[in-house]
Parts: sequence; C-alpha cells; structure tokens
Amino acid sequence: MKLFDGGRAPNPRRVRTFLAEKGLQVPLVPVDMGALEHKEQPVSSRNPLKRLPVLELDDGTIITESVAICRYFEELHPEPALFGRGALGKAIVEMWQRRVEFNLFGCVAAAFRHIHPAMKEWEIPQIPEWGEANKPKAIEFLRFLDAELAGREFVAGDAYSIADITGLVAIDFMKPARIKVPEECTNVLRWYREISSRPSAAA
Amino acid sequence: MKLFDGGRAPNPRRVRTFLAEKGLQVPLVPVDMGALEHKEQPVSSRNPLKRLPVLELDDGTIITESVAICRYFEELHPEPALFGRGALGKAIVEMWQRRVEFNLFGCVAAAFRHIHPAMKEWEIPQIPEWGEANKPKAIEFLRFLDAELAGREFVAGDAYSIADITGLVAIDFMKPARIKVPEECTNVLRWYREISSRPSAAA
Repeated sequence: MKLFDGGRAPNPRRVRTFLAEKGLQVPLVPVDMGALEHKEQPVSSRNPLKRLPVLELDDGTIITESVAICRYFEELHPEPALFGRGALGKAIVEMWQRRVEFNLFGCVAAAFRHIHPAMKEWEIPQIPEWGEANKPKAIEFLRFLDAELAGREFVAGDAYSIADITGLVAIDFMKPARIKVPEECTNVLRWYREISSRPSAAA
Repeated sequence: MKLFDGGRAPNPRRVRTFLAEKGLQVPLVPVDMGALEHKEQPVSSRNPLKRLPVLELDDGTIITESVAICRYFEELHPEPALFGRGALGKAIVEMWQRRVEFNLFGCVAAAFRHIHPAMKEWEIPQIPEWGEANKPKAIEFLRFLDAELAGREFVAGDAYSIADITGLVAIDFMKPARIKVPEECTNVLRWYREISSRPSAAA
C-alpha cells in the first residue's frame, strides 16, 4: 500500500492528520504539486482527475478522494472512531463534516484559487469576483460554528472527528487565502487552539 | 420522525430517491422553496443554514445534509446497501459519490444558480462568468464518467448506490442549467436511461 501525497496542500493533509489520529503509518510517495507533478503520468494514470491524495493498495486498486480514503481506514481500524458511533452518531459527524466542507473548506479554497496569483495555472479561468464572494460566506459560517462550539468541545459533539480535521485544515488554509477568524469568535479560536496542539496537526 | 422536504429541488430529491430504493416511508412536511419558505422559522429554527432537506427525529434531534440523512437510514436499514459493502466497497462508493458530487452535481448547481434569472435572490452575488465556467467542467467529467461506464453497469460498480442517485439528480438538473450530455457519451446515456426507469426516480 502507498499513498501519493501532496505535501502542504489541504486534502493530502486531511488524510495524514486522520492517519496520525488513528496511529497508522502508510508509506508516502511525495508529489511536488508546486511543480504540477500531480498532472503527470504517475498520478494521472492512477487518478484521471489529477488530484491528490491517491491511495494505491497492494493489488493495484486505487482509492481517491480524501474522505473516501479516510473511510477505508476507519472501516479497517475502527478505533478511535473518527466518523462517529451508531446510526445517529455517524449521521451527525457526516452532517458536520459536510457543513464544514461546503461552507468553510470549500469557500476558503475558492477564495484562494480564484484570487491568489500563484493559482493562475491551476484555476482556469480565475474569477477574482467569485473568490471575493466566498470570503463573507466563510466568515458567516464561522459565526454559526462559534455559537455551536459554545456548548461543546468539538465540531460534531464531545469526541474529535473527521469534521474537526476538515475544520483544522480549512482554518490553516485561511492564511494564504487572506481570511481571518473574527476576533469575537472566541469559541472557534479556543477549539482551533486545542485541535492545533494535537500531535496529528503536524502530520 | 418527519422530513422537511423541498419538492423539486435536487437535494430533497436525493433523499426521497434513497428512501424509495430502501422501501422506506417517512412523513414529509412540504416546504415551498419557490416562495422562499426554507428561509422562514419552521426551517431556519431547525437548520440555521436554511437549507433542505431537514430530518427531525421524534425526540427533536435534527439531521441536515442529504447524504448524512441517507447515511442515517443506511445504518438503520442496511439492505439494500446503497453506501457499499466492506471497507473497500464503502470507500469506492464514497469516492464516486464525491467525484459525482463535486465534478458534476456541484458544477451543474453553480451553472444554474449563477446564470438563471430566477436565482437572483438565491445566489448573492450572482456571477454569470462563474456559472459559465462550470459548464465545460461538467462536460469534461461526463466524458470521464462515460469511459468508466463502458465497463460496468453503475457509477460505483455492479450495484446501484448513492453515487447513482447523485448522478441521476445532477443529470436532470442539467436541463434547467442548460447543459446537455454530449451525444457521444453513449454509456452515460445508457446508464441514465436505466436509472431513470427505476420507480425511485419518480420519488
């Protein structure tokens, strides 16, 4: 088994953080996304969508999509549960994972890809107006999340989950996207400090 | 238990199609999205993000996000399996569900919301250039999917899954978004005809 990894890019980091929380080690194949290596044959032959990460099993089976790769490991190594427990717990984690992915992670990514000069060859056409439109959407979601985090430790409840991983990566991605967590979102800032201090955040 | 439903909108239809495939009946609370009723108190008090569908359990617990609601029912009623079987099967379904959601469903939704005049009050700001940019992305993914469907019956393998539901709803959503499946995508057209003829497609 090997994981084609994209270094500092957000989706590869989601999987590495997930594996660290599980205590799993998977051999990494580094891919230099800055040099657009993910568009070259080793990646494109495995994932025609030319995105990372890509997991290759020993029999050659390919799994792409960060959350799908995480779910594969969740099924094989259920503890600690990072996708929730029981029907309701799993649904709540999935709800929050999606809420954070669509309303924060996705908005931050759009702001970065459509505004940052370094993304000109990545996002074609780059539409700065669309990038700017995503910034207030991200802020609005952070205010909603802040109210939710007043009553609990983690995004999806009292246990750390994949929704926290998506949130961690999204918040760190805000820096290059030039979006700041509003100072009054003290619950978000407390939660971010806590999940950032876990060893998995450095994976 | 009751499901706040949004009629013809794509996400509510995903859940209704899923329930029909499971043979489950859940009492529906109709919400007129054309009249923006999803922004009013009955929905906004249950889902501050003001989106449908919303599932309310008998104890008042709320589950939002179409795929999270579907997963709740999958856990309670595992047959027929619509999220895959086993670690690898579940990962492959999740991979395809996400590929279809991000590269087709999401692109079609962006084209519709950012171009259609009726969406002016929904998508603020409406950015037609971004809507147009999504049309070739959807077409490009359909060509990729067409090559995949040459070798199997359904999107994620030999069994119908939630990835097919997301695909069905996305293709039907292409009509108001004014995107057409390329005529040469004969495998996509064959697959679409088959899944459209299932009783669940009318749910």
